[in-house]
Amino acid sequence: MLRRDMATSPVSRSPRVPVEWPHVVIVGGGFAGVSAARQLANRRVRVTIVDRHNFHTFLPLLYQVATAGLEPADVAYPIRTIFGHADNIGFRHATVADLDRARRVVVLDDKSELVYDHVIVTTGATASYFDIPGAARHALPLYSLADARRLRNRLLLALEEADVAAERSSVALNFVVVGGGPTGVETAGALSELVGIVIRRDGLHLEPSTVRVVLVDLAARLLTAFPESAARYAKRELESMGVEVEFGRSVVEVGPRSIRFADGESWAAAAVVWAAGVTAAGTLAGRLEGPRGPGGRAVVGGDLRVEGGAGVWAAGDAAAIPDGAGGYLPQLAPVAIQSGRHAARQVLAVLEGRATEPLRYRDKGIMATIGRRAAVAKLPHAGVIRGTVGWLAWLGLHLWYLVGFRNKLRVMINWTWRYFDWPSGPRLIVADAETAD
Amino acid sequence: MLRRDMATSPVSRSPRVPVEWPHVVIVGGGFAGVSAARQLANRRVRVTIVDRHNFHTFLPLLYQVATAGLEPADVAYPIRTIFGHADNIGFRHATVADLDRARRVVVLDDKSELVYDHVIVTTGATASYFDIPGAARHALPLYSLADARRLRNRLLLALEEADVAAERSSVALNFVVVGGGPTGVETAGALSELVGIVIRRDGLHLEPSTVRVVLVDLAARLLTAFPESAARYAKRELESMGVEVEFGRSVVEVGPRSIRFADGESWAAAAVVWAAGVTAAGTLAGRLEGPRGPGGRAVVGGDLRVEGGAGVWAAGDAAAIPDGAGGYLPQLAPVAIQSGRHAARQVLAVLEGRATEPLRYRDKGIMATIGRRAAVAKLPHAGVIRGTVGWLAWLGLHLWYLVGFRNKLRVMINWTWRYFDWPSGPRLIVADAETAD
Repeated sequence: MLRRDMATSPVSRSPRVPVEWPHVVIVGGGFAGVSAARQLANRRVRVTIVDRHNFHTFLPLLYQVATAGLEPADVAYPIRTIFGHADNIGFRHATVADLDRARRVVVLDDKSELVYDHVIVTTGATASYFDIPGAARHALPLYSLADARRLRNRLLLALEEADVAAERSSVALNFVVVGGGPTGVETAGALSELVGIVIRRDGLHLEPSTVRVVLVDLAARLLTAFPESAARYAKRELESMGVEVEFGRSVVEVGPRSIRFADGESWAAAAVVWAAGVTAAGTLAGRLEGPRGPGGRAVVGGDLRVEGGAGVWAAGDAAAIPDGAGGYLPQLAPVAIQSGRHAARQVLAVLEGRATEPLRYRDKGIMATIGRRAAVAKLPHAGVIRGTVGWLAWLGLHLWYLVGFRNKLRVMINWTWRYFDWPSGPRLIVADAETAD
Repeated sequence: MLRRDMATSPVSRSPRVPVEWPHVVIVGGGFAGVSAARQLANRRVRVTIVDRHNFHTFLPLLYQVATAGLEPADVAYPIRTIFGHADNIGFRHATVADLDRARRVVVLDDKSELVYDHVIVTTGATASYFDIPGAARHALPLYSLADARRLRNRLLLALEEADVAAERSSVALNFVVVGGGPTGVETAGALSELVGIVIRRDGLHLEPSTVRVVLVDLAARLLTAFPESAARYAKRELESMGVEVEFGRSVVEVGPRSIRFADGESWAAAAVVWAAGVTAAGTLAGRLEGPRGPGGRAVVGGDLRVEGGAGVWAAGDAAAIPDGAGGYLPQLAPVAIQSGRHAARQVLAVLEGRATEPLRYRDKGIMATIGRRAAVAKLPHAGVIRGTVGWLAWLGLHLWYLVGFRNKLRVMINWTWRYFDWPSGPRLIVADAETAD
């Protein structure tokens, strides 16, 4: 063990390597941050990952936690555990308050400071509400494990309440999903499945036909990043599962249990799921000096360097990364993974006196699942695949990228269960705040 | 499906059987309540289980959730799912406010009422703080899933905070467990294991020797319900795992991060786990008219009937059940299971015009585990077993009683991992309240 050696360097024992080594601070433990750290593992640098959560969250599967298909532990993995084998990587459980570029320090919310030689900002993005009144307060985003748990509680509680009401009179229960991108499509599909399973298996009195799942979007089609044929397929599949899809719907207000559109129409809504877009504006990246890209992202050079001084890099959803054709790379998991890795490599290049290189993004395609056995994937060379083959590709890819063998196994077991429609599942309503008695 | 038939009885569709059938309300979905309902499944009665949680909690394993060995979904199971096959059993997600025996109604907190022919009160018990100042506010009990999650967050956060402090100076971190019964012994053992794993696997800077786990009790020995030899064995095992055991310690005050004893001594404590005893006083059973047994329990007849009128029964931890020798049966899972079942049978007897019978408790023995591969069990005919054999017996018994095959499988996987000391585990700190950004 290194424990004994540490006594010789009491000044900075974080991480457990010589204090003379350059210190790289990675702000954020998402796809980009973890990929960057992996690249730096066991190199001659000290690395500190800072995150306000002690775990990495596998965001593409959050909607499964929200719809009671998976448990939080299935999609989250402690950051310390990921890097337990790398003595040069430490973790700090804290929120970053500021970056002082003149003094080269990351300021934490407890006022303590981390002096860096290089800092890689991978603070991701949060839901964007486009200043729509009530949206930030009442709509339910899906961008953290806590979001997913909150949405799950809301969905299950709404079904319980409606069930009691259904004994006395007929009820109508609407769940509205705003946004027809992959997150909206996946959530609407899984939500529709959840409603069916809960009513059928758990013996509710609700008539299934009184529970509506509606997916709304301002655009005239789903999945704008996919070809038109894939979008039509996704719509057909969703509708065959009972999801109503409405286009051209512009949300102007969200209430505690309602949603209102530009045409004046207003619906009761037991839950409004917000999958309408993301922004980096509220994050550290959004407060960096320099130009902004779409969604409040920090514009970086091709080598992921942030303008205005040395030693600051950005990657993942926090960064607007030039795509070489005048635009920016999309905010996708593969972009986060590749850019995080690339930023770390550029840090090593600078430290070793080599020239930096621009990121050459390798398109991995995009995928969305619509329910059991239905998915669409646009692959860079194979075109569009869909149906069961698409679903299996989606399944395999997600399992492959899930951090940790144990998580893979747990998720596989859960999915096997779901696939065969066995009646169990983690449909627990665990209150956020609760008295002891 | 029964859905069509239900339209013929709109007055009371809960559960989905003829409204003329007698209505049995079971208050509480713990061991006693679920056992009672199982006994009534598919009989000619309408049954409504009322619980403020939509899930049954396997209380004997809560300490594993608190020490990050298991996930909430491993020890909780939705009540609706348990009885999905029984058309005569319904579930109501609500808190019971009162019982009006004159009108034979259970009053819910939303002021709605359930008219009953029979009601079985199985509201369990809660932590008893013996009016010790600060205990109810600052000590952490282990009597619900929310308790377990709260304790886990506190433990993991304390280790993270101490780790940061350890970089600057030496720190001392105390975790104090109050109570030397099975819950205290199991929690102290698992907590000590957790600390070891976190420091070793997750690369903290804390010196393991600076983290103390102390088990205190007022008595002069552990596990007073077990023979003296088992108690000595448990103490030896705990101490070999690094747990300090102190007897004759009378707690007089608990602070936010401290604990004070009758001899004036005061310790800093990052967490005070409260495993000192339980009471039924705060529950519905504690508000029933009639005599009280130890711990505020409602004294029942041998047939589990509550004095003072017909149709009210109590079982499990909520009831003081005569043991036939002038005392009362202990508050154990087997007592809850057998008494819940017995109460339901007596209800059926009354409904069918038969005489009721006193509960004849079949002693199943008692068990406590102390860590991986160490446990003690007192079996009714086999005497005391301990060590690996005791641990395997404990493992098998708990898996056997865990509701649902899926839960059994998940727990088995988790335990297999723990056993081989693999580095993963659900050491997630998921905040209770969290902003969206």
